[in-house]
Amino acid sequence: MNEKVALIMGSDSDWAVMRAAAAVLKRFEIPFETDIVSAHRTPEKMMHFAQGAHENGFGVIIAGAGGAAHLPGMTAAYTPLPVIGVPIKSRNSLAGWDSILSILQMPDGVPVATVALNAAENAGILAAQILGLVHPEIRARLCAYKAELKAQTEAKAQKHRGAL
Amino acid sequence: MNEKVALIMGSDSDWAVMRAAAAVLKRFEIPFETDIVSAHRTPEKMMHFAQGAHENGFGVIIAGAGGAAHLPGMTAAYTPLPVIGVPIKSRNSLAGWDSILSILQMPDGVPVATVALNAAENAGILAAQILGLVHPEIRARLCAYKAELKAQTEAKAQKHRGAL
Amino acid sequence: MNEKVALIMGSDSDWAVMRAAAAVLKRFEIPFETDIVSAHRTPEKMMHFAQGAHENGFGVIIAGAGGAAHLPGMTAAYTPLPVIGVPIKSRNSLAGWDSILSILQMPDGVPVATVALNAAENAGILAAQILGLVHPEIRARLCAYKAELKAQTEAKAQKHRGAL
Amino acid sequence: MNEKVALIMGSDSDWAVMRAAAAVLKRFEIPFETDIVSAHRTPEKMMHFAQGAHENGFGVIIAGAGGAAHLPGMTAAYTPLPVIGVPIKSRNSLAGWDSILSILQMPDGVPVATVALNAAENAGILAAQILGLVHPEIRARLCAYKAELKAQTEAKAQKHRGAL
Amino acid sequence: MNEKVALIMGSDSDWAVMRAAAAVLKRFEIPFETDIVSAHRTPEKMMHFAQGAHENGFGVIIAGAGGAAHLPGMTAAYTPLPVIGVPIKSRNSLAGWDSILSILQMPDGVPVATVALNAAENAGILAAQILGLVHPEIRARLCAYKAELKAQTEAKAQKHRGAL
Amino acid sequence: MNEKVALIMGSDSDWAVMRAAAAVLKRFEIPFETDIVSAHRTPEKMMHFAQGAHENGFGVIIAGAGGAAHLPGMTAAYTPLPVIGVPIKSRNSLAGWDSILSILQMPDGVPVATVALNAAENAGILAAQILGLVHPEIRARLCAYKAELKAQTEAKAQKHRGAL
Amino acid sequence: MNEKVALIMGSDSDWAVMRAAAAVLKRFEIPFETDIVSAHRTPEKMMHFAQGAHENGFGVIIAGAGGAAHLPGMTAAYTPLPVIGVPIKSRNSLAGWDSILSILQMPDGVPVATVALNAAENAGILAAQILGLVHPEIRARLCAYKAELKAQTEAKAQKHRGAL
Amino acid sequence: MNEKVALIMGSDSDWAVMRAAAAVLKRFEIPFETDIVSAHRTPEKMMHFAQGAHENGFGVIIAGAGGAAHLPGMTAAYTPLPVIGVPIKSRNSLAGWDSILSILQMPDGVPVATVALNAAENAGILAAQILGLVHPEIRARLCAYKAELKAQTEAKAQKHRGAL
Repeated sequence: MNEKVALIMGSDSDWAVMRAAAAVLKRFEIPFETDIVSAHRTPEKMMHFAQGAHENGFGVIIAGAGGAAHLPGMTAAYTPLPVIGVPIKSRNSLAGWDSILSILQMPDGVPVATVALNAAENAGILAAQILGLVHPEIRARLCAYKAELKAQTEAKAQKHRGAL
Repeated sequence: MNEKVALIMGSDSDWAVMRAAAAVLKRFEIPFETDIVSAHRTPEKMMHFAQGAHENGFGVIIAGAGGAAHLPGMTAAYTPLPVIGVPIKSRNSLAGWDSILSILQMPDGVPVATVALNAAENAGILAAQILGLVHPEIRARLCAYKAELKAQTEAKAQKHRGAL
Repeated sequence: MNEKVALIMGSDSDWAVMRAAAAVLKRFEIPFETDIVSAHRTPEKMMHFAQGAHENGFGVIIAGAGGAAHLPGMTAAYTPLPVIGVPIKSRNSLAGWDSILSILQMPDGVPVATVALNAAENAGILAAQILGLVHPEIRARLCAYKAELKAQTEAKAQKHRGAL
Repeated sequence: MNEKVALIMGSDSDWAVMRAAAAVLKRFEIPFETDIVSAHRTPEKMMHFAQGAHENGFGVIIAGAGGAAHLPGMTAAYTPLPVIGVPIKSRNSLAGWDSILSILQMPDGVPVATVALNAAENAGILAAQILGLVHPEIRARLCAYKAELKAQTEAKAQKHRGAL
Repeated sequence: MNEKVALIMGSDSDWAVMRAAAAVLKRFEIPFETDIVSAHRTPEKMMHFAQGAHENGFGVIIAGAGGAAHLPGMTAAYTPLPVIGVPIKSRNSLAGWDSILSILQMPDGVPVATVALNAAENAGILAAQILGLVHPEIRARLCAYKAELKAQTEAKAQKHRGAL
Repeated sequence: MNEKVALIMGSDSDWAVMRAAAAVLKRFEIPFETDIVSAHRTPEKMMHFAQGAHENGFGVIIAGAGGAAHLPGMTAAYTPLPVIGVPIKSRNSLAGWDSILSILQMPDGVPVATVALNAAENAGILAAQILGLVHPEIRARLCAYKAELKAQTEAKAQKHRGAL
Repeated sequence: MNEKVALIMGSDSDWAVMRAAAAVLKRFEIPFETDIVSAHRTPEKMMHFAQGAHENGFGVIIAGAGGAAHLPGMTAAYTPLPVIGVPIKSRNSLAGWDSILSILQMPDGVPVATVALNAAENAGILAAQILGLVHPEIRARLCAYKAELKAQTEAKAQKHRGAL
Repeated sequence: MNEKVALIMGSDSDWAVMRAAAAVLKRFEIPFETDIVSAHRTPEKMMHFAQGAHENGFGVIIAGAGGAAHLPGMTAAYTPLPVIGVPIKSRNSLAGWDSILSILQMPDGVPVATVALNAAENAGILAAQILGLVHPEIRARLCAYKAELKAQTEAKAQKHRGAL
């Protein structure tokens, strides 16, 4: 498999949320690399990473950030790869509204594929769905995953009905 | 090229916004099919479309909807494909807040890749970025597109500086 | 009594909120069935349940969900029965705003009778008010209930005035 | 048919929105009466109307109001009937947020079945769904209506696909 | 002194907030009566109280409520007295937004003098300011109170400057 | 009559809204003076006005402002009189949210009696209700006004019922 | 005078708003240069400009942008100069909320001095206030400007009082 | 160094947030004075302080306040100095929205340089950036500070990469 996922975030404190993306990628056996890349504290590193990502074996970038969250959008400015943005409800954010809007509302020409607040798990699944285009075995794992979600929900439903 | 993009929307009135996605797909020479599929008025059609999409030649689904916008999320419930959601500021929506939140805030397990309000153009570019993983020529067109954006902006900058 | 109430919710964690609806229905001696039905994880089950509900003895459906809450609206898409939606302030929701808007803002043709955030008790009372059209004894219990609310409030008022 | 629908609103200017409910009720052949009843200008009239509605042949009340919209909730305070609330985006409302919240967020014990902003049409359909419990012919009309929505949407879909 | 203040609230749980108004009224030696009066559970009591208040020795009404807070506005509908509304951030309210908007956004003709969220203390002071028009001794106490606020703040300022 | 109303506003452009307060005061035969007093452009004038208002024949102050609306609150800082604040949806305001919050959310000790967005008419009525404590003839006019509102509404109701 | 102001914006369409800053700078006789610099379309240009600004004669940077407005914050990431951010209510922004939050809510270490929505004029004045530290003549012009605002407001006040 | 920073706040309880500004100023060796100055409780003190600040050795004013936060804007009304406003999420504020809007949305002519909610640290850095125009050693410390932020982030990044 040629395409790795890059899993970057603005601060090491974001890892508490973002590790859910790593867990999903492992489950789907998708290789990934992770790093702390701050749009505001290490902007040159961000630029170099993003400019080169598509030539360094990455196929998808997942970027998480909170507050005035510029990392996903600035990464998207530099790369032709799809960038998945995870708005993080960090300590200083306005209940997450700032994180969502500053990731989601990108101008024409430079999209960020935004997922729900703190939804790093879904970022991982979306990356798998994208890589599923290239790798049938990932597509197959996604179908199995959907079946598993269904079975788990039905198991809970049975337990729920039985409890009354 | 084996993967088509599906471009669906909840109402024909959404086409005024969604046609920008079609224009981008044409520009990037990506085959697509478009249809009106309403989560609330034609739910069975939605289900059949979404369940079969990955076996019917589609690689990415773009779904636009407004208000209590359930089409992108419900499509994602049925398919292993990546689904791009376009929140539409339709006549009855609360300035788009309902459209955004009901597309973005999907539960764990079922992501929708949400773009900005009315940002159908960006949905098209995101689809191209995803398909660029499989098709080097699309990747190349994306790099050319980024260069063109840069050149256009710089041309405007020159004109702006000259006007003062 | 021929009409049961269906009490469904997207996740077993919603039961902590939704059990208040069950308590009301018991109090009003209204038969009900409850199940976990996820719009996003078990969409076919949702469809089959909703399509058949009016022929399977149900008269009213109460559906609770949080975040991008599609269960009430999608159930309404499939059934001619009145659907009462309970927006749940679940762990991942944006303080409940997403839950409210994605249940309330349904398009023309497919209403959901939305109650307040987490107001499962009121969903139960609304179901009783609806069934009170058919069953005079439920109507009578509602009138008694209103009198009881009044008496309880006045008892608290007396205690309050006495405490000063 | 014994149950009429009451269609009340706080101001005659609300009729521009609320007439869509009347149109639906006519379509479903449901008898209704309409009146201007202001919670704040004619509170005694509101009280007398609401206290007696269930004994005066009404089965469902639809109440529309904007701004600090107290009519639906206060009507619900006085009646054992189901009350459907229509938040109206009136001239002085804060884009409808005040109308929605002051109708939706009712306390335990006194629900209002709230529909979307300005969604008088859906209020009419919800009333029909409720009365469909008593009158099989209304239920049948609702099933036909759903089929018609589906057919209309598919007709638009065909036109849409053909236009490209 | 002929004018009492009425201090009413929708629920005894509101007293935790509203007692601050009582404390202010005591401080300013303004007679008051307090009661639990629910717009939704005891609407007739509310009506009778409000209709008669100006003939029963009251000069100002302070009304506190949360959620779809109709008590202040409905009281204002029935009385020619000034009504001061206290939006309460109660357990079920949407962080207080519903409480604020359903008290503040009253239609033309029926004002409520709204104070800040949970600001029962300020409701008491506003009542004193109003009664200060009639009673010079209350006006004098207000002037003294303002001087005291100033002195307290300056004392804290001195301590603050000294602590560095 | 000894008490005048002061009707101040931050900008002459606010007069389009605030004149409705003047019209009400005229109707209730309450003397008033009006002036442009800007918290940010003429702060000393504001201070001198507010400090002396209660000794210069004023009984109530109505202050209208938009955006970061500091005029009502700062006036309240200087005067023992009741201050009524009118949040104005001015050209630069954020749909009025800034105007509302910066007038309403005053700290303990310094209340502003806030009315709805742009509700200058209600500010006038509230001033009349306050002055009605001192002047029985104003109280009488308020009772007549309420009766008139009721009659007008019922006249519209009759016309409405007749039109169907 | 050694310090120029840089007046940059993300799009030439922002000039309609930003020209008010230029007008202020001219009035205060402060030299400035203006350019179109897009964080997302010309990110390298932005970096080079921002990295070198303090060595190229600039003392203050004013940056205007709308939507997911990254230009002010990213400029601040690269420069030790004070950066003034102007949130612009551009065509695609969510009534300006996205513009405000993505400029204002910067993380610790990298401030942006944010002014009101569309308040380019105030950005110019703030730049003058900053440069007034170095240049007494600018300080003097600011004092004169404040006096002029006061005089203009009082002239309008006189006209307003006279008109009644 | 001739210019001190004034660090004022509306209440001593704000010091828990504002002390971060003091810490930054100490780090950058910038002299400052701090005081409690309440716009609403000590308005004359505020006026005298603000009117004289530029003649009393101050170069920049940092003002923190919460709720209807008038201190920064009113200070700006009286001074030609740049005023940095820190919106504080105080106990009574609406999650900080009131604090932000009543500081940020100042009218034309009277800017406040607003930083993020509770971002006193950034207020200190912004003051340093402003004073860096006059004092090259502060500019140098800012460049060193930026380098340090970068190094710290990279150290965390290394630790993060190593931990997986």
